[in-house]
Amino acid sequence: MDARIDRLQRAAAGSQRVVGLGGGLPAAELFPRKELASSFLAVVYEPTCAALQYGWPEGDPELRAWIAARLRARGARVAAGDVIVTSGAQQAVGIAMDRLAARGLRVGLDRETYPAALDLLRAKGGRAATDAEPPDWFYVMPGVTNPAGTGMPPDRRAEILASGAPVIADEAYAELRFDGSVPRPLLAGARDRTWHVGTLSKTLSPGLRVGWLVPPPGELAAALEAKRARDLEAGNLSQAVVRSFLARYDFDARLAAARAYYADRAGCLVELLRRHLPGWRFHEPEGGFSVFVETDVRGDDVAFLEHATRNGVTFDPGRMFRPGGPPASVSMRLCFSRASRAELEAGVRRLERAALTFRGAATVKTWATP
Amino acid sequence: MDARIDRLQRAAAGSQRVVGLGGGLPAAELFPRKELASSFLAVVYEPTCAALQYGWPEGDPELRAWIAARLRARGARVAAGDVIVTSGAQQAVGIAMDRLAARGLRVGLDRETYPAALDLLRAKGGRAATDAEPPDWFYVMPGVTNPAGTGMPPDRRAEILASGAPVIADEAYAELRFDGSVPRPLLAGARDRTWHVGTLSKTLSPGLRVGWLVPPPGELAAALEAKRARDLEAGNLSQAVVRSFLARYDFDARLAAARAYYADRAGCLVELLRRHLPGWRFHEPEGGFSVFVETDVRGDDVAFLEHATRNGVTFDPGRMFRPGGPPASVSMRLCFSRASRAELEAGVRRLERAALTFRGAATVKTWATP
Repeated sequence: MDARIDRLQRAAAGSQRVVGLGGGLPAAELFPRKELASSFLAVVYEPTCAALQYGWPEGDPELRAWIAARLRARGARVAAGDVIVTSGAQQAVGIAMDRLAARGLRVGLDRETYPAALDLLRAKGGRAATDAEPPDWFYVMPGVTNPAGTGMPPDRRAEILASGAPVIADEAYAELRFDGSVPRPLLAGARDRTWHVGTLSKTLSPGLRVGWLVPPPGELAAALEAKRARDLEAGNLSQAVVRSFLARYDFDARLAAARAYYADRAGCLVELLRRHLPGWRFHEPEGGFSVFVETDVRGDDVAFLEHATRNGVTFDPGRMFRPGGPPASVSMRLCFSRASRAELEAGVRRLERAALTFRGAATVKTWATP
Repeated sequence: MDARIDRLQRAAAGSQRVVGLGGGLPAAELFPRKELASSFLAVVYEPTCAALQYGWPEGDPELRAWIAARLRARGARVAAGDVIVTSGAQQAVGIAMDRLAARGLRVGLDRETYPAALDLLRAKGGRAATDAEPPDWFYVMPGVTNPAGTGMPPDRRAEILASGAPVIADEAYAELRFDGSVPRPLLAGARDRTWHVGTLSKTLSPGLRVGWLVPPPGELAAALEAKRARDLEAGNLSQAVVRSFLARYDFDARLAAARAYYADRAGCLVELLRRHLPGWRFHEPEGGFSVFVETDVRGDDVAFLEHATRNGVTFDPGRMFRPGGPPASVSMRLCFSRASRAELEAGVRRLERAALTFRGAATVKTWATP
């Protein structure tokens, strides 16, 4: 994590005056507070009170069965016993990378990808594979990428499956495609070399820290031992609450409502960007929480973040998502997931003002035309 | 984790017929279910619902302030900003060991110590320092050791403080001394090289997964980055529940009740062992959840565990706690923490029978005398 970015984001988070378009947080109004409270009460008064006790490193059996059943419904051969519940998706990615690092450190990545995975990779001395060399393994986000919110192109999918190389398939956002489709998981096509990663952080609540890892069968025992070594087990209380929640409420109905909610916000942000900043380029998101924008602002993206923060808006600088470091033009992740429509409008207007007044503004052409 | 031990413990845990004297679990009847439920309801209905959202990697500010205040009350110079909330104590130990491994891998350990710390150390290629060599660093459990339940002798404490070497001070059980005393923390004497580890798993609930790490000041930034890389943050929901619980209920009164409860169970187990197995040797526990017993049963401790399980009782084999591997006589951790008085009695009687009927019984002298 870049210390300057961290400092700026913390300062902005503490200010009521700043509209936050960074962070990748789900909408608080989608949290099923009442249902989770009811689930908590149900499990804490179970006779053995297993929710408050130690559990097994692999996690709650019913929760694992639910995860496996959902993957089977999408065409993968996965049993409950193949699933390790993890302390969020981040831990699952970390366990997978630890195991894969021994194979090599030239990794096939999307052009922009999840910053905390890049941090893990860099800490191991890894780097993005160039076009000229076959990757030792892949880290990708099929279904919905972060930050771009787009699907995986069919030729990219085919390339990965044909490569024979192991792949970490991070499905953090895969169930949040706005059209309601959820693509066939990569592990349905390459069970023996896919490290499948999922989470409830985007679809239910990140405060629960419930994610999961389905390692290749031959790696299951080692991955479970790694999980145990890291923190013994994922939070048993959170797992019990989720298990109870899933047994009593309709998760798919919630997903459908969340997709509609985020699709609405995404549409709002896209419209605002096109109206106010027509020269900024992005792919229209197909799902997830964010768009990735290439601006025509020249200069350092963190300097522009600092300037934007003074203008009352924050974003996630593009360099966070780029394995190769920042390009000459400023890019950024803008999250529509947590902002109200009014905040999105205020945020985009402030971005426009920030771009116009940034010291590199002479090279900004977009709004020079009337 | 030894695969045979894991298999035996899982089989026994699934059986109603087997008394479990292993595992190191707190007593479920001490879990404050009502108070935690009330705390959950309080935080889940807070306006921003921060409990269900992402938080910062260092953890909840109020919880960190509480942890720091308790350490200050014991003589250490610790501010809230020095504390990292972790996903249990295990993660804190892991972060500390990752940083210390670069200094060397000859580690000063108690003769018996926490198995999951030993697993971490072995995975790094580390080993116990011999008497002939100064340790590169220490991993110790001041206050109350696991498994022996005894305090740290003053000369050992002085040796560690005089050594100038870094030390991981794992205080998982330190607040559970039966006499109510809590020793001055090691970091009060060596702030710049102590990695202080604590947890609520023994005193409140392990299902919450709330532990903490106070690194040496010069290591704070790196430790926080390591925490973030591992799982972004400890469960925000659990932290919020704890924060609310601590603000509204008397934690020290709960501690006092827990100490009295465990002291009673410890006394019961000690008495049973002296009556039924007078040749077995152990230190009377001063706190914690367990005693460490050296038996006069000859042979393999895992084979004896298998035999004991068939006789309706389990324990944790001594080899789990021994950096140097198993000795010729069977040793074991026996936990009084989770068993009722009737279960303790049944468990010790079954241990007696198992010892009498074990294939190595010819060398067992204790109960050969009338």
